[in-house]
Amino acid sequence: MNPRERSFWGWGWADRFPDEEARRSLAEQAGAMLGTKPPDPAAPPRLEGIALPRPVVAPPPELAAFSGAGAAERIAHTWGKSYGDLVRGFAGDFSLAPDFVVRPRGEEELERTLAWCSRQGVAAIPFGGGTSVVSGVERPPRESRFAAAVSIDLGALDRVAEVDEVSRAARIQAGATGPALEAQLAGHGLTLRHYPQSFEFSTLGGWIATRAGGHFATLYTHIDDLVESVRMITPGGVWQSRRLPASGAGPSPDRLALGSEGILGVITEAWVRVQARPRWRASAGVFFAEHAAAVDAARAIAQAGLYPANCRLLDPVEARMNLVAGDGSSVLLLAFESADHALDGWIGHALAIASAHGGRCPDGPVLREDGAQAAAAQSWRAAFFAAPYLQTALVSLGVIADTFETACTWDRFARLHEAVGAAVREAAVRACGSEGILACRFTHVYPDGPAPYYTFVAPGRRGAELEQHAAIKRAASEALSSCGATITHHHAVGRLHRPWYDRERPAPFAQALRAAKSALDPAGILNPGVLID
Amino acid sequence: MNPRERSFWGWGWADRFPDEEARRSLAEQAGAMLGTKPPDPAAPPRLEGIALPRPVVAPPPELAAFSGAGAAERIAHTWGKSYGDLVRGFAGDFSLAPDFVVRPRGEEELERTLAWCSRQGVAAIPFGGGTSVVSGVERPPRESRFAAAVSIDLGALDRVAEVDEVSRAARIQAGATGPALEAQLAGHGLTLRHYPQSFEFSTLGGWIATRAGGHFATLYTHIDDLVESVRMITPGGVWQSRRLPASGAGPSPDRLALGSEGILGVITEAWVRVQARPRWRASAGVFFAEHAAAVDAARAIAQAGLYPANCRLLDPVEARMNLVAGDGSSVLLLAFESADHALDGWIGHALAIASAHGGRCPDGPVLREDGAQAAAAQSWRAAFFAAPYLQTALVSLGVIADTFETACTWDRFARLHEAVGAAVREAAVRACGSEGILACRFTHVYPDGPAPYYTFVAPGRRGAELEQHAAIKRAASEALSSCGATITHHHAVGRLHRPWYDRERPAPFAQALRAAKSALDPAGILNPGVLID
Repeated sequence: MNPRERSFWGWGWADRFPDEEARRSLAEQAGAMLGTKPPDPAAPPRLEGIALPRPVVAPPPELAAFSGAGAAERIAHTWGKSYGDLVRGFAGDFSLAPDFVVRPRGEEELERTLAWCSRQGVAAIPFGGGTSVVSGVERPPRESRFAAAVSIDLGALDRVAEVDEVSRAARIQAGATGPALEAQLAGHGLTLRHYPQSFEFSTLGGWIATRAGGHFATLYTHIDDLVESVRMITPGGVWQSRRLPASGAGPSPDRLALGSEGILGVITEAWVRVQARPRWRASAGVFFAEHAAAVDAARAIAQAGLYPANCRLLDPVEARMNLVAGDGSSVLLLAFESADHALDGWIGHALAIASAHGGRCPDGPVLREDGAQAAAAQSWRAAFFAAPYLQTALVSLGVIADTFETACTWDRFARLHEAVGAAVREAAVRACGSEGILACRFTHVYPDGPAPYYTFVAPGRRGAELEQHAAIKRAASEALSSCGATITHHHAVGRLHRPWYDRERPAPFAQALRAAKSALDPAGILNPGVLID
Repeated sequence: MNPRERSFWGWGWADRFPDEEARRSLAEQAGAMLGTKPPDPAAPPRLEGIALPRPVVAPPPELAAFSGAGAAERIAHTWGKSYGDLVRGFAGDFSLAPDFVVRPRGEEELERTLAWCSRQGVAAIPFGGGTSVVSGVERPPRESRFAAAVSIDLGALDRVAEVDEVSRAARIQAGATGPALEAQLAGHGLTLRHYPQSFEFSTLGGWIATRAGGHFATLYTHIDDLVESVRMITPGGVWQSRRLPASGAGPSPDRLALGSEGILGVITEAWVRVQARPRWRASAGVFFAEHAAAVDAARAIAQAGLYPANCRLLDPVEARMNLVAGDGSSVLLLAFESADHALDGWIGHALAIASAHGGRCPDGPVLREDGAQAAAAQSWRAAFFAAPYLQTALVSLGVIADTFETACTWDRFARLHEAVGAAVREAAVRACGSEGILACRFTHVYPDGPAPYYTFVAPGRRGAELEQHAAIKRAASEALSSCGATITHHHAVGRLHRPWYDRERPAPFAQALRAAKSALDPAGILNPGVLID
């Protein structure tokens, strides 16, 4: 049997791309939803038909044993998985293909690669799962000072190398994907319990480099909080922090590696905090007639010190799209998880707060003690991981479909939400002739603010989708920025978010980061153009 | 009435230094405890008798309006409050007095100060509460390239400037002390709930610069986690991060400011996360015959997802010193706090875990609902804040008394604890002719490790205490370092911990930090010698 193949242009496994009939059916639905005639399912690209630019450099002898310069390899490492990447991929545009791909089998080969790139002035682009949605894994433009570029694929470093069951920690190589590392931890009864939407394909190293957010709403869900120590190869030497539960010794080195997006070094492994697999679960869906009341309830729960695993507030559009409520209600999905104790008290307190804010929970809470998730949670997670496949299918129909996310303090949310809605609708009307659809949910809640996550869908015009999408994305980003929200809560910066990131960060911090990079990567080869120039 | 005066050489309020009779009584106790004859209470120094070095520079006209060069001012800003500082202060040694002290009343005056220092090559030492125990607020040696130095006292910036009751956040100036900011927050029913041992005198800016640890055992207790945004004046410009509950936009700027110990800039204010004042409290003391079983219980509770406010494990020596148990038991002090809900369930689960590890809780849990702390917690906090006064009194008797603290993963604790005990006892015998006393408690517990806090007491020889102490401190620090623990969990690095900090941090991180400093502080005037050279 051949190994299952990933789509060379779209999200995930190639065999999950819907067939002609399924796409026609999806087109009908999309047309009905957008009030347009059903879009036309164009034929997907064929690998054989892709024209690639000639490489400027070939693998040198010292890298040849672990390099590949074949078309399929170069194509698979050209783009990430942003909306624009999917559109370009679907159109057969792989004009930014790297010259070749290296796949180091250990740190020595990685060091050799960085040394060669530094000597030759070749851009070195770290590549984990290739799931960046912010142009974080593509080479710089050919007209930049980097005519040549190699993609450094960490996929060969995919092992859980060590498990400390006493401290509940594991040393895991950076190229391990979510399923790969969870399978290896499961043998110890442990889990990293980190589920970004890209979980199936993204890697530990990528999560650390981009400060990934897991799908739990509170406490230990960001990879930032799960990292105990980081090992990173820089052109200037090995960056290895000590395994520590906490330290007050100077600024945290790990926190500088976290979010460095490949510009300071290539992460090769990390000690991460793992957990016992949950046994008790308690969950409930709470319905609100008014969205503002639901927001207040989510805030009160976030500030109560209960720390739910989920506190996911769906606005009426999101609730309708997810078939959770079709009557204009907002829905708050609450869940608690524990490996240690039953959760009746926890969900009881949370429901009391929701009820005090006018929420109705007609079915009462669901309590389980067998380690299994409630059916609603299972179907939610399946839908969550399926969403990028749906986006890929919509791209093939010429429909514009994307998400963006942010975080802001509670006092600013109402104004932000209004501003984002107005900006996106206006931009969609201008670019697409239709308001399209905009849905919002909270993915995470903090005592001082929520992380709102927006999905927008609008009718595209074949060939014009990139500009249409860019206009909407720009309007949304301007709204976030002008309302004091962050340009990204967990999607990272890459090249896509640079203009707004540059405004958001303190100017002296940019100077400090630039200086740090010059010290560690004097040739400036690592992921040029990402985060800083 | 005169304002209450701080001791010019010892900890805290001058009027709390014990009189002759009280010191004789303390000397009796110390002698009995150490098995020596009662040490002799020497006379404390008199301010009038202090000989100060001549200043090299005087306040220039542009700084004169907010500068002071009087003896009392210079003396008060010479040292922090480490053991060595107390010994030097008691001996009347203020040889490292700054040339003068500036007390900016706003950011413009601070900027003017930094500009002048940069132009003149004068060292600029940020000074909050002056409670550093790691030589973090003293000028560099006169034989360094800085012949002149000014102390920058942030004390005039002490206001809670803004409160956002919806998001539970407050904008607070960096020079506000614990009591000052809590008094201002109390009017809103809010609290920062951050209680380092230096609480009475240390400041928000100092806490951020040194990554202070509060006295709660889990979750939001470190200032790191309470900071929403930081404002810092650097010679290279204003560093202002955006108020955000979370962000994934590049490495966190706040996390580089946190722990920067004054070498990158001077923090002037921060938005911090505040909380409703707790109403419910549940607490219990659990006794263990075996320390190892108590450690396992603390670990199990730390890994259970219960998040106690206190999970303070006292070893038998600590339990005896604190009059909690005199029979060789280890004692685990547990407490939960909430502003939202009763805590019966929480303490019940924690006690069940403790009991499963052989712990006995003869009195059962104490539950309160009136916002008041149980008597045991109140007396603990009073003793906690009184400990530095006791150290000062012991210094006046020539007794060596100090603390050090660390953090390590659970798997390493047993070996670390043994190594620290052996190292300290051996060094004490060699330096003091007596093993002295060594006590240990856990101040914080994390899912992956504890933060052990050690107190040691040994008989000193008048005039030799600094070397005797240094020998013990060095032995302890070597033990921490060689066992893979951190050189400091919340006391910071300063100058005192530099040798071990230099070994602990990743070498490329040191390069990055040095480069960042050069970019922001090209003249290198800010706190020279702290963290890096």
